[in-house]
Amino acid sequence: MNRPNIVILGAGYGGIMTAVNLQKKISPEEANITLVNKHDYHYQTTWLHENAAGTLHHDRTRISIKDVIDFNKIKFIQDTVESIDPEKKVVKLEDGELQYDYLVIGLGFESATFGIEGLKEHAFSIQNINSARLIRDHIEYNFAQYNIEEDGQDLITIIVGGAGFTGIEFVAEVANRVPELCQEYDVPREKVRIINVEAGPTALAGFDPELVEYAMNRLEEKGVEFKLGTMIKKVNEEGIVVEKDEEQEEIKSKNVIWAAGVTGNSIVQESGFETNRGRVPVRGDLRTPDYDDVFVVGDCAVIMNPETERPYPPTAQIAIQMADTVAHNLKQMLSGSDELEGFEPNIQGTVASLGHTDAIGVVFDDKKLFGRSASVMKKAIDNRYLMKLGGLGLLLKKGKLDMYH
Amino acid sequence: MNRPNIVILGAGYGGIMTAVNLQKKISPEEANITLVNKHDYHYQTTWLHENAAGTLHHDRTRISIKDVIDFNKIKFIQDTVESIDPEKKVVKLEDGELQYDYLVIGLGFESATFGIEGLKEHAFSIQNINSARLIRDHIEYNFAQYNIEEDGQDLITIIVGGAGFTGIEFVAEVANRVPELCQEYDVPREKVRIINVEAGPTALAGFDPELVEYAMNRLEEKGVEFKLGTMIKKVNEEGIVVEKDEEQEEIKSKNVIWAAGVTGNSIVQESGFETNRGRVPVRGDLRTPDYDDVFVVGDCAVIMNPETERPYPPTAQIAIQMADTVAHNLKQMLSGSDELEGFEPNIQGTVASLGHTDAIGVVFDDKKLFGRSASVMKKAIDNRYLMKLGGLGLLLKKGKLDMYH
Repeated sequence: MNRPNIVILGAGYGGIMTAVNLQKKISPEEANITLVNKHDYHYQTTWLHENAAGTLHHDRTRISIKDVIDFNKIKFIQDTVESIDPEKKVVKLEDGELQYDYLVIGLGFESATFGIEGLKEHAFSIQNINSARLIRDHIEYNFAQYNIEEDGQDLITIIVGGAGFTGIEFVAEVANRVPELCQEYDVPREKVRIINVEAGPTALAGFDPELVEYAMNRLEEKGVEFKLGTMIKKVNEEGIVVEKDEEQEEIKSKNVIWAAGVTGNSIVQESGFETNRGRVPVRGDLRTPDYDDVFVVGDCAVIMNPETERPYPPTAQIAIQMADTVAHNLKQMLSGSDELEGFEPNIQGTVASLGHTDAIGVVFDDKKLFGRSASVMKKAIDNRYLMKLGGLGLLLKKGKLDMYH
Repeated sequence: MNRPNIVILGAGYGGIMTAVNLQKKISPEEANITLVNKHDYHYQTTWLHENAAGTLHHDRTRISIKDVIDFNKIKFIQDTVESIDPEKKVVKLEDGELQYDYLVIGLGFESATFGIEGLKEHAFSIQNINSARLIRDHIEYNFAQYNIEEDGQDLITIIVGGAGFTGIEFVAEVANRVPELCQEYDVPREKVRIINVEAGPTALAGFDPELVEYAMNRLEEKGVEFKLGTMIKKVNEEGIVVEKDEEQEEIKSKNVIWAAGVTGNSIVQESGFETNRGRVPVRGDLRTPDYDDVFVVGDCAVIMNPETERPYPPTAQIAIQMADTVAHNLKQMLSGSDELEGFEPNIQGTVASLGHTDAIGVVFDDKKLFGRSASVMKKAIDNRYLMKLGGLGLLLKKGKLDMYH
């Protein structure tokens, strides 16, 4: 009874899909499989911006691990990973240690603050269920204070740092949420400011200019103010200081949300793995450069796009596909084969949501989508994932089934 | 066309009912009637504790003034009263002045802090829609932070100062709300503390001991901790310091709500009217001691109970009855009669709610009620008021019609 131990760290897209794949491919006689996660639920990181804006309840976004993992096949430990020792093959948890023969690291992202003064202390970032819920409640609480305070403009000024994919998706939800907040808290809509600050020259960098223009127009119609080519220099208790063309401006706000950059979980780098800007430059078979028994999936890994010679952006889509490769390769290794599969991302499309019924995106390489059809595509992608993760039952429970309205 | 000006200040129970009565009794040819209120809505002060706990939405508690007042008969001014000059017969508003011939003061209560250090700065009090909504959101926001903070016990400790009528009613709603908060914010119920601090030797002073015991037992079953005979000595950012039997104890809490005392609006005293502990000791006909043309209704007035030789507690019930007397007397004065009616309170019952389906109370002088029957009585009293204020339409819109469950 000397079965090898497979340990999966993290139940994000990459980790949970690796576990789901393994429980289909590998029998309990072949290996002991353990999944470690901080919470007893998985969540869809790509929906967190809706929870943070308050347009979707966080219970829709999270999925009980017991609903998708068969605990007869996979042992689940709810604990927090503190460090990994790849030489001794040991994972140190807050409440214990785990010995592994094969390790899958899926520890996700953390916010990158690029050294901006005060950002970490005074800005929120959308990282997980707890922080998304806190942002929702923080904004609500500030709106609730508006009619108590003498001058409460800063309470109803919402600043979003970053007009990339996440920044735009969040701003769009906020723009949809603000009219509801105004009604709930007796705040005149015209007093509320939603400001999106982006250091680069354009919103949604990398998207087709026509799509970017559509998105910005739609958001401006809903009252979003864009400040492009504008750096956030400082964040403090009062608000932010921005700089454009060497001119500084102070904007008072109690609601500063940073949505501009993420990097791999710092535990990976601190555990001594080779990293590039916080992510492990994995081999083609998704193992780390130095360790044959350690795979990395999702946001902790970086892979290059040979066509553009730049890294693929870390997305849910790629993390889910990586989980297929990792599960396949683990099965091969358990069988004593050294024929491991190389990972090849298959980018089927990229759609950014602009609220419940609006979106922009590209599918099938170069087909541009706007508005309702893009929104339907976005929901279809999300629903397909739920189907893959937990079958029809999960899709019916958590899916976005109101696709056409 | 030299019609006298009747000005009513405040649209609380006393003010709005005076206006409703006058629009029935007095024709536009007899007098100009003006109602001044800070907001464009009336609210049921006796329901605010439910809004503050989050068990009832504040829109149920408030009633648009236009829904009960006929603006062809009564002029409504939304403004804030700053002071009254009873010699010049002028009311100073934030945005103007009003000349009156007859004045009705119904400016309501404000919180009495009894000189407790830090109470005003660091404790919340249930005063109006804005402050009730803020308390709800404040508690929610603290619960949302619990899973972010290392040690967040103070975030989920709720302290209510005062176990009188309002204190107990509020504590009961909080006890009902906490399980919902625990679910929403992933907080273990057993970690949450609800502490009710009362300086006097008993909760619900003045109520029959059997009723008090029933109420305390029911609330203790729901996890409320009572600290009777315990003074709040100090409130600060960290929580409160209490003293019992000369021993001091510090309790850390970010949720301190003061529900222990109210006094009349300080504008009345500051305007030079004779007051007794902030309330005007009105004559039998509800006019001030010094001015024949100024009536006071509701919480700004104090009347003595000749049987007990103590003042009647200021309640909605008494305010509403006072409005009948004031309207009658104004009609008499307009007709040139000096036969004014004396006010006689008709206390039909006193019922304290212990949540949605539970209550205690006394009706018909000495009939004690517990549980569901008391709760039904409480809702019947509230519904009767809505009927009186705005007829069947208002009752159907805002009433507590789910009386039996």
